[in-house]
Amino acid sequence: MKVDGKYIQTIWLDEDERRVKIIDQRRLPHEFVIVDLQTVDDTITAIKDMYVRGAPLIGVTGAYGVYLAALNAPDNQTNNDYLIQECNRIKASRPTAVNLVWAVDHVLAEVLKASDLHTKIATAKKRAAAIAAQEVENCKKIGEHGLPLIEQISRKKEGKPVNVLTHCNAGWLACIEYGTATAPIYAAFDRGIDVHVWVDETRPLNQGTRLTAWELGKHGVKHTIITDNAGGYLMQQGKVDIVIVGTDRTTATGDVANKIGTYLKALAAKDNNIPFYVALPSSTFDWRLKDGVNEIPIEVRDPNEIKYVHGLDKDKTTRVLICPAASPAANFAFDITPAKLVSGLITERGICMATEEDIRRLFPEK
Amino acid sequence: MKVDGKYIQTIWLDEDERRVKIIDQRRLPHEFVIVDLQTVDDTITAIKDMYVRGAPLIGVTGAYGVYLAALNAPDNQTNNDYLIQECNRIKASRPTAVNLVWAVDHVLAEVLKASDLHTKIATAKKRAAAIAAQEVENCKKIGEHGLPLIEQISRKKEGKPVNVLTHCNAGWLACIEYGTATAPIYAAFDRGIDVHVWVDETRPLNQGTRLTAWELGKHGVKHTIITDNAGGYLMQQGKVDIVIVGTDRTTATGDVANKIGTYLKALAAKDNNIPFYVALPSSTFDWRLKDGVNEIPIEVRDPNEIKYVHGLDKDKTTRVLICPAASPAANFAFDITPAKLVSGLITERGICMATEEDIRRLFPEK
Repeated sequence: MKVDGKYIQTIWLDEDERRVKIIDQRRLPHEFVIVDLQTVDDTITAIKDMYVRGAPLIGVTGAYGVYLAALNAPDNQTNNDYLIQECNRIKASRPTAVNLVWAVDHVLAEVLKASDLHTKIATAKKRAAAIAAQEVENCKKIGEHGLPLIEQISRKKEGKPVNVLTHCNAGWLACIEYGTATAPIYAAFDRGIDVHVWVDETRPLNQGTRLTAWELGKHGVKHTIITDNAGGYLMQQGKVDIVIVGTDRTTATGDVANKIGTYLKALAAKDNNIPFYVALPSSTFDWRLKDGVNEIPIEVRDPNEIKYVHGLDKDKTTRVLICPAASPAANFAFDITPAKLVSGLITERGICMATEEDIRRLFPEK
Repeated sequence: MKVDGKYIQTIWLDEDERRVKIIDQRRLPHEFVIVDLQTVDDTITAIKDMYVRGAPLIGVTGAYGVYLAALNAPDNQTNNDYLIQECNRIKASRPTAVNLVWAVDHVLAEVLKASDLHTKIATAKKRAAAIAAQEVENCKKIGEHGLPLIEQISRKKEGKPVNVLTHCNAGWLACIEYGTATAPIYAAFDRGIDVHVWVDETRPLNQGTRLTAWELGKHGVKHTIITDNAGGYLMQQGKVDIVIVGTDRTTATGDVANKIGTYLKALAAKDNNIPFYVALPSSTFDWRLKDGVNEIPIEVRDPNEIKYVHGLDKDKTTRVLICPAASPAANFAFDITPAKLVSGLITERGICMATEEDIRRLFPEK
């Protein structure tokens, strides 16, 4: 995507092919810093300390970590043991991200088949790049399948701006390019459709304010930041045409786990007859699950993420305490939007309803 | 209410009867500072710059402003003109607060009837104190009428904690004592009922985090701060027994204008069969209105209230920018919760349903 007129993805291999380049997303939106990963330790730090976040991007970063492990492996018979050990360390860096384990294991399995270190390195590089390309392709397809939803509204409104509301960051910063929820938005923008995005700030970590607003702004897409409280009012006033969000895990029956607060927006969309869509690559389906509210475990995070807010004070970044120091806080990371509130799921194979039957129609092999 | 074991209200006359004392609420929760108002200018600054906020408290502050005007009036025939002029200045300090105009006009009308300045001063003091006393009495009654709702849940849960969720600050800090939404909570706490409050942080101005958490904590009431996004999840998980909020204006048909985000919580309460109550003195009814969504004007405030967050950095208060400086933000202050989502209205005369018929049953004279 574009940043200040320059094309960029969230992760790439340097020309010397010895360094993996990433954006240090912790420092957005106030600083745009590219960081080099040269070792497995660098990779683990980047994942664990959230230089990179978003399941697809974490997966690709892990895949490139296998490449860096091979690049730094001792050139002898024991390098398989070494590689397995290094991969285990990468996989443990954020144990809840399903994509990470899958991507690392996938690259490692291919690498172990190669007989010499030179071939192992070449295989790792090729496989990591292939996973990245597949993620890009999936997001691109999501954009193509979601585009008609926005085009249709634009036609109905006779070219007046289409107002999309989104929550959290399911943008290209969470993926490699295009994003999931943002893919149809970028596709519409690139076609010249007048599109405007309401960006939920997404407390407590402000992924909307920090990341979604930043990436939309850098690509030139019109947007307005709102508090997480505001979506209902905007819908009551007819100021939202469609809601599109991402998801961290979706059941085979269409229940959607996503950043906390998503459920509240889905309720408001339903109450105001506004379409509510969820964009996801099929890897996000958890085919084993049928009851989101009771089966999807919800991560509980550090209360200090609520009690302290990060930002820029004059020209230095800092954090401020926003409540009585003695007051406890509870920090639940996700909620479940029941399938009944979801108008449709936008996948790389097309759009389906949030029902077991219709999901399986698109993915009969699952 | 209690602050560090000491009994306090939000506003009172000093022993010398020449200074009005208030809490500078802008500095909560990090600093507890009592400020003296000695002149009309002091009063205007306190209201305009939000040292005091909350419709009932603004009204009482304005009423005491009339007293300060009389105290400082020239002792001659022109003091009526002087008083009228000073009252106009007070009323203009925050023109949207209905209580302010009402309270100032009410005190002024009585003052103008008195023949000499000495009597005018005495009348103003007495009338301002009477308005404050009436506000306290109304909140106390709201507490008494709301208490059985909490008692009943406590009995049903066999003494396990009753979890109340509230939004914004409709606490004693917004009133003189007890508060509106908090009145039943304090009443339950004072009876020894095990009550725990989920405190919505209430972006953008964080009245929940800054004020509600502070006042509950100081009185000793168990509470937990949550993001505005979290209420739906907590309700899905059965962790909320009742929602009680305040209101800035309620129509004769029971549509409720309150701090933005209230509507989203009401939707979630409905979806999870959780009672949703609104606590209000009858002065908050706008008897002329019948359609909240279309008739109640919604205040639009400074976008910087969203873009900057205030807090404590080490030991000094400051504000930090939390988004790209170039991104616009939209700051709508209130939303409308339609009557269909409201389980009941808790007033100083008792509880009624949010219907025109039942409201008029309680207030037949309106």
